[in-house]
Amino acid sequence: MPHIDLPTEHAGIRSGFAFRPDTAKPMNELVEILLAGPSTLSKGERELIATYVSSRNCTHYCHSIHGMIAAAHLGGDELLVKQVKTDFMQAQISPKLKSLLVIAGKVQQDGKLVKSEDIETARTLGATDMEIHDTVLIAAAFCMYNRYVDGLGTVQPEDEAPYRERGREVAQKGYVRMSSEYLGLEPVGRS
Amino acid sequence: MPHIDLPTEHAGIRSGFAFRPDTAKPMNELVEILLAGPSTLSKGERELIATYVSSRNCTHYCHSIHGMIAAAHLGGDELLVKQVKTDFMQAQISPKLKSLLVIAGKVQQDGKLVKSEDIETARTLGATDMEIHDTVLIAAAFCMYNRYVDGLGTVQPEDEAPYRERGREVAQKGYVRMSSEYLGLEPVGRS
Repeated sequence: MPHIDLPTEHAGIRSGFAFRPDTAKPMNELVEILLAGPSTLSKGERELIATYVSSRNCTHYCHSIHGMIAAAHLGGDELLVKQVKTDFMQAQISPKLKSLLVIAGKVQQDGKLVKSEDIETARTLGATDMEIHDTVLIAAAFCMYNRYVDGLGTVQPEDEAPYRERGREVAQKGYVRMSSEYLGLEPVGRS
Repeated sequence: MPHIDLPTEHAGIRSGFAFRPDTAKPMNELVEILLAGPSTLSKGERELIATYVSSRNCTHYCHSIHGMIAAAHLGGDELLVKQVKTDFMQAQISPKLKSLLVIAGKVQQDGKLVKSEDIETARTLGATDMEIHDTVLIAAAFCMYNRYVDGLGTVQPEDEAPYRERGREVAQKGYVRMSSEYLGLEPVGRS
């Protein structure tokens, strides 16, 4: 049960967003730029970073929904997403993405754990400064989203089906448009 | 030394903001609403929550600058700010703020550690649902800002004086206006 009087018609982060739409707005704009805006990392790759960090924070709602959005961008490959959550080093993803997930995993624990060797490895495998920046910020941002969802005691459904359905919709429409719809805000941004 | 090619004329989070102004914009809007927007918690109280979380994450830049902004809002009482960083239970702050700092400290570790007893205590001491919501989100957001600053390996000056000077300016002008100035953005928002 949520710790405060959150709107019961929404689950997870959406109940927090509906409780305070004015903080929801910049939170949605940030995730839209990072995960759905122009980037040399694919949307699938960026969603995998978000999913991996959320999985390490054990935030069921976030790793489920972002896992399904990632799968939607990756031709429906839910098995690959599960492999990234459990043991990404064995997953069929690029060595560059693996090196970025190493950085993301360190940021999830503590940004100070990122060492110049981690950066060098990522660079050798083709990562740009912008890709490294965005990996750090995606990991940092999901440490916020995850704590927001857990710290409010939001409802986080167990069943996979609703995450799959919503994941496909978010993958298609983007974050700002989806949130604008249920928050009753003017749709703005890049979606 | 920063892990990526950050602008050398800025320290801490400002170097990340200058590297990617489009992500800086929603990050500044969020902190503006949470720490400087209308609230039944004073600006000093909210800055103390941000300072405490940053201190627990050992992010020198953030706990120094927000500590100085807090002090600026609290009549220059830097000793009180230091007491909150080291042992807030002994600090001369309200029992309600102490109960909110307990919640913030749990969110800093893991949102799932917040229990209904923590919420009940805060409510008994006068905290509203919105104040509890904002405490959770301030703590969660600073887990993002702190990791961003540390994960990029930004320069974090040791000397207290520049934090004191800038803290007074931010306390007066607000976040969005301050960041607009050095990012060359159109000043918008509430400040």
